[in-house]
Amino acid sequence: MALINEHFLKLQENYFFSDIEKKINAFRVTHPEKKLLRIGRGDVSSPLPPACVEAMHRALDEMSREETFRGYGPEQGYSFLINTILKHDFAPLGIELTPSEIFVSDGAKSDTCNIGEILRWDNSMGITDPVYPVYAESNIMCGRSGTRGEDGKWSNVMYLPCTEANGFVPETPDHRLDIIYLCYPNNPTGTTLTHRQLKKWVDYALKNDTLIIYDAAYEAYIHEKSIPHSIYEIRGAKKVAIEIRSFSKTAGFTGVRCGYTVVPKEVTAANINGERIPLNPLWYRRQCTKSNGTSYITQRGAEAAYSPEGQQQIKEKIAYYMENARIIRESLARMGLTYYGGINAPYIWVKTPDGLSSWKCFEKMLYEANVVVTPGIGFGPSGEGFIRLAAFAKRDECEEAMERIRRWL
Amino acid sequence: MALINEHFLKLQENYFFSDIEKKINAFRVTHPEKKLLRIGRGDVSSPLPPACVEAMHRALDEMSREETFRGYGPEQGYSFLINTILKHDFAPLGIELTPSEIFVSDGAKSDTCNIGEILRWDNSMGITDPVYPVYAESNIMCGRSGTRGEDGKWSNVMYLPCTEANGFVPETPDHRLDIIYLCYPNNPTGTTLTHRQLKKWVDYALKNDTLIIYDAAYEAYIHEKSIPHSIYEIRGAKKVAIEIRSFSKTAGFTGVRCGYTVVPKEVTAANINGERIPLNPLWYRRQCTKSNGTSYITQRGAEAAYSPEGQQQIKEKIAYYMENARIIRESLARMGLTYYGGINAPYIWVKTPDGLSSWKCFEKMLYEANVVVTPGIGFGPSGEGFIRLAAFAKRDECEEAMERIRRWL
Repeated sequence: MALINEHFLKLQENYFFSDIEKKINAFRVTHPEKKLLRIGRGDVSSPLPPACVEAMHRALDEMSREETFRGYGPEQGYSFLINTILKHDFAPLGIELTPSEIFVSDGAKSDTCNIGEILRWDNSMGITDPVYPVYAESNIMCGRSGTRGEDGKWSNVMYLPCTEANGFVPETPDHRLDIIYLCYPNNPTGTTLTHRQLKKWVDYALKNDTLIIYDAAYEAYIHEKSIPHSIYEIRGAKKVAIEIRSFSKTAGFTGVRCGYTVVPKEVTAANINGERIPLNPLWYRRQCTKSNGTSYITQRGAEAAYSPEGQQQIKEKIAYYMENARIIRESLARMGLTYYGGINAPYIWVKTPDGLSSWKCFEKMLYEANVVVTPGIGFGPSGEGFIRLAAFAKRDECEEAMERIRRWL
Repeated sequence: MALINEHFLKLQENYFFSDIEKKINAFRVTHPEKKLLRIGRGDVSSPLPPACVEAMHRALDEMSREETFRGYGPEQGYSFLINTILKHDFAPLGIELTPSEIFVSDGAKSDTCNIGEILRWDNSMGITDPVYPVYAESNIMCGRSGTRGEDGKWSNVMYLPCTEANGFVPETPDHRLDIIYLCYPNNPTGTTLTHRQLKKWVDYALKNDTLIIYDAAYEAYIHEKSIPHSIYEIRGAKKVAIEIRSFSKTAGFTGVRCGYTVVPKEVTAANINGERIPLNPLWYRRQCTKSNGTSYITQRGAEAAYSPEGQQQIKEKIAYYMENARIIRESLARMGLTYYGGINAPYIWVKTPDGLSSWKCFEKMLYEANVVVTPGIGFGPSGEGFIRLAAFAKRDECEEAMERIRRWL
């Protein structure tokens, strides 16, 4: 008889965000007359930028004519997109990368999970806490995380707490770890690392031979100069870091699916004999074998996001969302609530009122204020006692949600 | 230091199809004046069906307006598509499935690989030989295949030879296996299993508690009545089989990316204590955690493939390709070459002339006839001495390629 992968049984029954959707649906069934306002979601509300839409219509027309139809594309992405990425996302930062170091995919989420496949299952690993839950969950699925303790922590995961006490800047560990996941600007706390703070991490990785998986999905929300957009702005990072990017929160591609991963030629890990093995060809092999890349139409849309019109449209969208963030921050301040983030990131991390637990606060706000937030505990043990707000709602919904919270308090 | 997944080092340097592309590129660089004809590729040449194109333009317009924009979709696919699949692909065959048993994805290739993640790494497994290489390769990557012998066979893989001697109908094994991959209509041999022949496999699986991964990516090419389109046409299959489908070779979605996987509620595997665990929730958990589904625009395109216009357009395309298959078969017959398949499948499996090895034949045909075929050995040890031809080229290229082969012989 076939045996299952037992690690799956260690997981909570539902993926965190699916769980939230289930609770919302339960509310809707019992309260069909209530209009919910969703202010916790990491999902954009604005339509695709016109530049992307036009490019995708054109690409679709190409796909409809025999002379211009395209079948299977290169698994690692079309060079028109890869070259555009290099020119716009890295060259201006003084970062030199070659086309074969960029791998276009159907999104940062899959890459973040799949990257673990090229690494041994029993590497030690660390994550900042709280953080986007898929880092931990994808590692649970392959057994790397060990077993779950009663405190919700996994035995083989080192948690690097990001708390009020340390200003949400995690300390580098006092011992060596094989793999560390960093996400900056951070989901869910909305906080960032300065160049100097990120350098500490790269130096730690260089000294301890640690691989950093750097999730930079929100880099476009950075506007302060002291904050690096890419980990490769730090000297030496190309030896120790893989960076993951997304078009979801820039071009609004959450429902379209496109992202990319940078695996520099210099980044290596060891085989069992201690020989250094470049990770770039392993990832190339993984992607060629297990994927057929992302849609040609989507890739043309992503390319157009870098056109002058596309860039302008995206800049306006981000400004719109960040104005939401300002409104949320100022409303919270007026209510006397404690919050963090929301300056260089679309997330605002809010301490629950009256010391409520995250889920309790979520449920009370859902049932009493008809506002949906995201419970902080879903992002890790240090998320308890917090909720995540996001800047992605429409302006009037954002304002109305803050007003409902004010009345509810 | 991080350790790599050593199983990756056991793989050949390049994925089989990437290897072919490299050889073709090398030829093109040295022979820029030669026009190659590609007659071995499993990639469609006809543009997307107009019904799909129209639906995708409409979906794209929805994505461009605030009122109709959609962000993250359900990870397992939109219900408009799932319900359409159930109604058109299964109900007419008398197969009852529920929406939560269908998982829409970015393609059959990724599903075929990813499905192994919910199963223990050391299950025993079998594959027909020759077959689509990703079954073996995805299992090599997680260590399930063992080590590679000098004969090119993997120590923990049971090869079920499909040869001229058995008419390309594999024998069920004489002992039990945990997992078996079947692909019918078959890639690369173009052969099929009748209802009676497939029933033998389902009975074997029921008796031996074996899980069948059934790849039915080419079912639309079946026109003979005795050949089942879905494994669920066989009584009992819902207990033992997962079926994978694709829009690549029907709606021409090789560059658009959409497929789906059926995981019936009844199909189970065991945990270490021998308790039966349904695989459906494990796969649901895997997909929710590691994926954000496939593009909304793509899913609207896939839905339109089932409209009356879409069905008619696809029918015409398949008829076009199968007319190519007929031309290829008749040309081969006139040349006195031995071939199989091409009746209920777009592939024709051809014995190399003069007992040439697969790669030798590939290279000679590339350099001497400027025709690109696919070497059979890439599909497994029993593929040696064969080449795969495909019916997907344009008509004139198909005819010209056959003429070149005739002159070359």
